[in-house]
Amino acid sequence: MPLNQIDLNSDVGESFGHYILGLDAEVIPHISSANIACGYHAGDPTVMRKTVALARANGVALGAHPGLPDLVGFGRRNMDVTLEEIKDFVTVQIGALQAVAALQGARLQHVKPHGALYTMAVKNPAIWDAVAEVIAKLDERLILFVLAGSDRKELEAIGKRRGIRMAFEFFADRAYNSDGSLVSRKLPGAVIHDNDEVAAKVLKLVKEGRVKTLAGSEIDLKAETICVHGDNPKALALVQKICETLKAAGVAVKAPADFL
Amino acid sequence: MPLNQIDLNSDVGESFGHYILGLDAEVIPHISSANIACGYHAGDPTVMRKTVALARANGVALGAHPGLPDLVGFGRRNMDVTLEEIKDFVTVQIGALQAVAALQGARLQHVKPHGALYTMAVKNPAIWDAVAEVIAKLDERLILFVLAGSDRKELEAIGKRRGIRMAFEFFADRAYNSDGSLVSRKLPGAVIHDNDEVAAKVLKLVKEGRVKTLAGSEIDLKAETICVHGDNPKALALVQKICETLKAAGVAVKAPADFL
Amino acid sequence: MPLNQIDLNSDVGESFGHYILGLDAEVIPHISSANIACGYHAGDPTVMRKTVALARANGVALGAHPGLPDLVGFGRRNMDVTLEEIKDFVTVQIGALQAVAALQGARLQHVKPHGALYTMAVKNPAIWDAVAEVIAKLDERLILFVLAGSDRKELEAIGKRRGIRMAFEFFADRAYNSDGSLVSRKLPGAVIHDNDEVAAKVLKLVKEGRVKTLAGSEIDLKAETICVHGDNPKALALVQKICETLKAAGVAVKAPADFL
Amino acid sequence: MPLNQIDLNSDVGESFGHYILGLDAEVIPHISSANIACGYHAGDPTVMRKTVALARANGVALGAHPGLPDLVGFGRRNMDVTLEEIKDFVTVQIGALQAVAALQGARLQHVKPHGALYTMAVKNPAIWDAVAEVIAKLDERLILFVLAGSDRKELEAIGKRRGIRMAFEFFADRAYNSDGSLVSRKLPGAVIHDNDEVAAKVLKLVKEGRVKTLAGSEIDLKAETICVHGDNPKALALVQKICETLKAAGVAVKAPADFL
Repeated sequence: MPLNQIDLNSDVGESFGHYILGLDAEVIPHISSANIACGYHAGDPTVMRKTVALARANGVALGAHPGLPDLVGFGRRNMDVTLEEIKDFVTVQIGALQAVAALQGARLQHVKPHGALYTMAVKNPAIWDAVAEVIAKLDERLILFVLAGSDRKELEAIGKRRGIRMAFEFFADRAYNSDGSLVSRKLPGAVIHDNDEVAAKVLKLVKEGRVKTLAGSEIDLKAETICVHGDNPKALALVQKICETLKAAGVAVKAPADFL
Repeated sequence: MPLNQIDLNSDVGESFGHYILGLDAEVIPHISSANIACGYHAGDPTVMRKTVALARANGVALGAHPGLPDLVGFGRRNMDVTLEEIKDFVTVQIGALQAVAALQGARLQHVKPHGALYTMAVKNPAIWDAVAEVIAKLDERLILFVLAGSDRKELEAIGKRRGIRMAFEFFADRAYNSDGSLVSRKLPGAVIHDNDEVAAKVLKLVKEGRVKTLAGSEIDLKAETICVHGDNPKALALVQKICETLKAAGVAVKAPADFL
Repeated sequence: MPLNQIDLNSDVGESFGHYILGLDAEVIPHISSANIACGYHAGDPTVMRKTVALARANGVALGAHPGLPDLVGFGRRNMDVTLEEIKDFVTVQIGALQAVAALQGARLQHVKPHGALYTMAVKNPAIWDAVAEVIAKLDERLILFVLAGSDRKELEAIGKRRGIRMAFEFFADRAYNSDGSLVSRKLPGAVIHDNDEVAAKVLKLVKEGRVKTLAGSEIDLKAETICVHGDNPKALALVQKICETLKAAGVAVKAPADFL
Repeated sequence: MPLNQIDLNSDVGESFGHYILGLDAEVIPHISSANIACGYHAGDPTVMRKTVALARANGVALGAHPGLPDLVGFGRRNMDVTLEEIKDFVTVQIGALQAVAALQGARLQHVKPHGALYTMAVKNPAIWDAVAEVIAKLDERLILFVLAGSDRKELEAIGKRRGIRMAFEFFADRAYNSDGSLVSRKLPGAVIHDNDEVAAKVLKLVKEGRVKTLAGSEIDLKAETICVHGDNPKALALVQKICETLKAAGVAVKAPADFL
């Protein structure tokens, strides 16, 4: 069943103090869900406030993007942390952003773990479950963004048990293995650099629910949100290309709270 | 009009990682309001969770104790920060603790600024107003703890305008000037070391609404909450003395949400 | 007596982890002294190593650029710190960069305090003295960069007493008061935006030892080093303009260790 | 060949700002080598200065105790860091303490990695080599403390190649496996709680160069330094017991620079 809507999400609010990171003002108008850093791996209270305002001014849904407490490593380094600690880290980060949003009369739509926390969860579903537990207790309307792949049923079961919705995420510029997992960045061909190819890939996913793998075969993959980037002008051009392609195909870019 | 109830508040949850600070388990059973550090000047996510649990197990009301972002200085150093930055700092700290409390099915009763942020506010009421604005937007049921003194009317006007309640705070072991302000710690006699004297001072405040100043005169002072400390065994002994004195006089120790 | 040499110094190594700040690779080839951040207000160990390597590859003298411990505020916020604390902060930062340089077989030429620490020292010469004391004990060959102005004799006396050299610094794009102090950034005209005007100002300083003040008069001002910036393409263009102007006038750009 | 001297080392200077950790003033008089935290996992510039002064006042040799950049985790959490990053971390920490020592007219004797960095090195000798490389470049007189065990020859080869001395470290209160490695803390019997047993173990090591393993057999083990703790009164009592036992047996407690 072809979809006529899809979410585009992007990591934003990653500046810190005097340090500016990302073209937030340029990418936010194109997306439907903003993953806002919460001060652990990036972001600070003032950046959080300004990013919430920017997203709201553009009608973009707000999401918390909690990471590991590692600013200098940008939350990309694995750390030996317990599930209990992960729940603590995620709780205070979501709570901080909830408050920033509340001050502007808004509330969060979703939560997407960042960097090493996300990849650790992909390898260990107990981490998805821990985050889901936190979300369910904080605000059961919050949607958890998780990686789309062959383990969808297992993850959906976590969502059902915890009583929250999940949005499965597709990485438009990444190659996929035949089991639905992402090709490791260490391998050749892991990242797709051709914008037309990426846009075609997105359209195929949305319209057919299928992805061509690195090996050349095709697999089923269901996703409700697509991760895009706003780090640099080249990334922005890709976002625009994706948006045009979706529009031309009659697919609306919509926040998942509107269709899940 | 003599009061038959008063709040006792104490700063708790000030440990950080491997660093233990304060006799929280000992002091919490004696107080009615816990000011819990939120990770800026002290505290970390795990300590916050454990402190909330400890306070709840003892029926003590939860409060956020936001400070300046200065862990090594314990939030006691003045910093050049704007009102906008103060609002940002306070928002994320309260939000973080609100989330920690929500995970345990609880909510916060109050907010008390910490250290340099508190003393900066005493000198500049625009800071009280900024914090009050944040509180009103986050949860209008939150009570702001402010310093009791001659400017009560001015502060009450802030609370009224912002639509929140305030609890005026008395420092039991500190000497007062005749204008109702605290004697500077740099001056001799600023801190009272005799437990009987402190306890008598508390009782006089509660029963008569009056305080004997350092100069020897007596002034009117109205307060709803009394700050006590749990840093060391000596401080604990003082808390116990105060509790006994209040009990013997028929004064109940109660969280201000119950009587304000 | 016209000078035929002058130092150009610039703040570099201000990136942090994933955050890139400044066009170091572009500005370093034009300067003679690099002020390298030491991890307190900016910089991290890896950035420090790479910046030392970059400066050395360009034959640029190495300097420590110690700041206040305030990454999110970029060391630009005044903080309540004692002279003893300032000495501690400066000691560990210089030591850290000395070690980074030593690993590459190099040593530091100078020390220039950063941001709020610099402006605090301008207002309170006891801070210059504290830094001079640290420098003298760490390596008496280190040169302290201080603000050029009417207090030159007082500062020189500090250097003499502590047994270290000082290089007096001129801010090329800033307007001066008739007493030799910088016009506050809060006042109109404080920053000069015309590149030709700035270059002419530099040349006048070097050749005549004189500066035209904001009020229009001329004053004597002696300086051995000129602060330039590499934050953005516009700043870079100014550095190039200054270099060309100096070259055309037969003035060599040289590190102060070579002529002090 | 029985030794008539041995080094006792202890981790000190682990306080941070308002947080006090360890009974430094009590343990330092008993030891010969002080491992001083350098601000990454513990310690701050002021604590570093005071700890250096305290060690010097007691004639105790100074050592850097570099750790991973993880204050809240006390440097005890493994982190995904490259050898290059480890060298950077270690360089700035040693350099910082070298400067603190230099300000007091002293220099460092040794370097002992802390916590997770130490245990990571035990598992991956390339980390020992990386630290040795840094040490050799900073000051070839510095002694590297490494874990005593069956891999002594391999580690000695690293020291020889890098041109530095090593002191092999024995953990007095830890049980050993028959291959000379430490029994994991996760296993029963890993830590020996009987002071007499620990002291006897130390004496056997010093006099016979042998250790009784957890399994009951005896193995050869050569060590020049013994790790003791000053965290609490119980740990202190053990240090005193060890000192008395050594003294009664005619073994001098000496810093390894004096006998290596």
